[in-house]
Amino acid sequence: MKAIHLHGRPIGGEGQVLICTPLVGKTPEAVLSELMIVLPKKPDLIEWRVDFFEEIANTGTVIEVAGLIKKAAGSIPIIFTCRSINEGGERIPLDGAGLVQLFVAICAARCVDVIDFELSNPADQLATLREASRANDVAMIMSYHNFQMTPEAAVIEGKYAEAQQLGADIGKVAVMPRSPGDVLTQMGATWRACEAGTIPLIGMSMGGFGSVSRMVGGVFGSTVTFAVGKAASAPGQIPIEELRSALQTVSRSVSGR
Amino acid sequence: MKAIHLHGRPIGGEGQVLICTPLVGKTPEAVLSELMIVLPKKPDLIEWRVDFFEEIANTGTVIEVAGLIKKAAGSIPIIFTCRSINEGGERIPLDGAGLVQLFVAICAARCVDVIDFELSNPADQLATLREASRANDVAMIMSYHNFQMTPEAAVIEGKYAEAQQLGADIGKVAVMPRSPGDVLTQMGATWRACEAGTIPLIGMSMGGFGSVSRMVGGVFGSTVTFAVGKAASAPGQIPIEELRSALQTVSRSVSGR
Repeated sequence: MKAIHLHGRPIGGEGQVLICTPLVGKTPEAVLSELMIVLPKKPDLIEWRVDFFEEIANTGTVIEVAGLIKKAAGSIPIIFTCRSINEGGERIPLDGAGLVQLFVAICAARCVDVIDFELSNPADQLATLREASRANDVAMIMSYHNFQMTPEAAVIEGKYAEAQQLGADIGKVAVMPRSPGDVLTQMGATWRACEAGTIPLIGMSMGGFGSVSRMVGGVFGSTVTFAVGKAASAPGQIPIEELRSALQTVSRSVSGR
Repeated sequence: MKAIHLHGRPIGGEGQVLICTPLVGKTPEAVLSELMIVLPKKPDLIEWRVDFFEEIANTGTVIEVAGLIKKAAGSIPIIFTCRSINEGGERIPLDGAGLVQLFVAICAARCVDVIDFELSNPADQLATLREASRANDVAMIMSYHNFQMTPEAAVIEGKYAEAQQLGADIGKVAVMPRSPGDVLTQMGATWRACEAGTIPLIGMSMGGFGSVSRMVGGVFGSTVTFAVGKAASAPGQIPIEELRSALQTVSRSVSGR
């Protein structure tokens, strides 16, 4: 597994899958209270799902809250994500240009460590945010989500390859299985993309069957797994304490300790 | 997942993967003391690996010890297994004919619930033991083990199909992965065989990477997972308490509870 580096430093142990918990509060108070519940559970990463945030159109407030999250989280890196409604997110009052402006401002304020932007966005927006993030030492995830089904392995591998080709620091694919076999398709594609590519990847299958990929995906090249801190942000997420225990069993067993 | 039935009764809950712990003692005392350590851990099944037993050539002693195991184990079904040296077992002082005689005697004594006999054995031996086991209401696992590598998916699916075609009650395949991808190959083959066939299957990948299949294999059609009670009988086995905890996480997550 390739390690994730932020600001030039590796996150987590060698080959250790990282646990990320989402924040899905609608108001500044809700987000910060959620953070207070999540922090004692010691996630490796925190993702602020800003598409849930009612004041998303107020850039000043978003930057302010991001700054408060970052301050409270201390050394835990913050991922800033606005999942689009097409890829499982909430409806937001910003259009594409407005969203890019928000992300550029977030990068310029350096109040987060990572941004997540979807590969389905126009190429010029991806390029703009790659430039803005790089200029401000903010890492960039390029992601693909499919809440309906699991595409063929070649499509999934293509998404990872596209992320790498467009200069992403991390490529992410989350897909919905319709059968247990689809979970194997996703993990197989992530494993082959990990072997073929150079950037760290995050791969998962969502929903019931898919939840096993949140436990064992690290063996197949996925570097981050998303867990429930206070509330889930996607189907199939496992409470962080329970997931951590399962990951420790995986780690001990795989290494033969 | 297909339920395992013994003596006409289902073992374990609906779709619940069963935990089997092996007994690998060399003497009657060692086997029975191992059993006393294993029983409080409440495995669903116990496998006596008689190839480890120094007195294997003494049929009377084997039947006597099997009877003691069965009595102590109460309602926990006993699997009687002599893994061959070619498939990861110990060297034994019996030839093929002598081994078949032992298994026939064990079936006649009705001192175990299941026998495990390898598909690599001659067809007439498989047929003899299928008849002897059926006549005595003893179930029969037909198995394939490869400690060197993971064959192609079609080969693995062929082993399961062969077990079913030869009248096995349960088909079992255990293979060694050389890469994480091999674990997905095994789980994929087990899943497809489960969908295509009619008998319950047991599938696992051994060793470090393979250990994840011992945790999540149930999602992909495997009905039994082998755990360490006192001592492992194959590489990659996980201590029963730890495995049970991971299986509970899998079960809760998959069912969305």
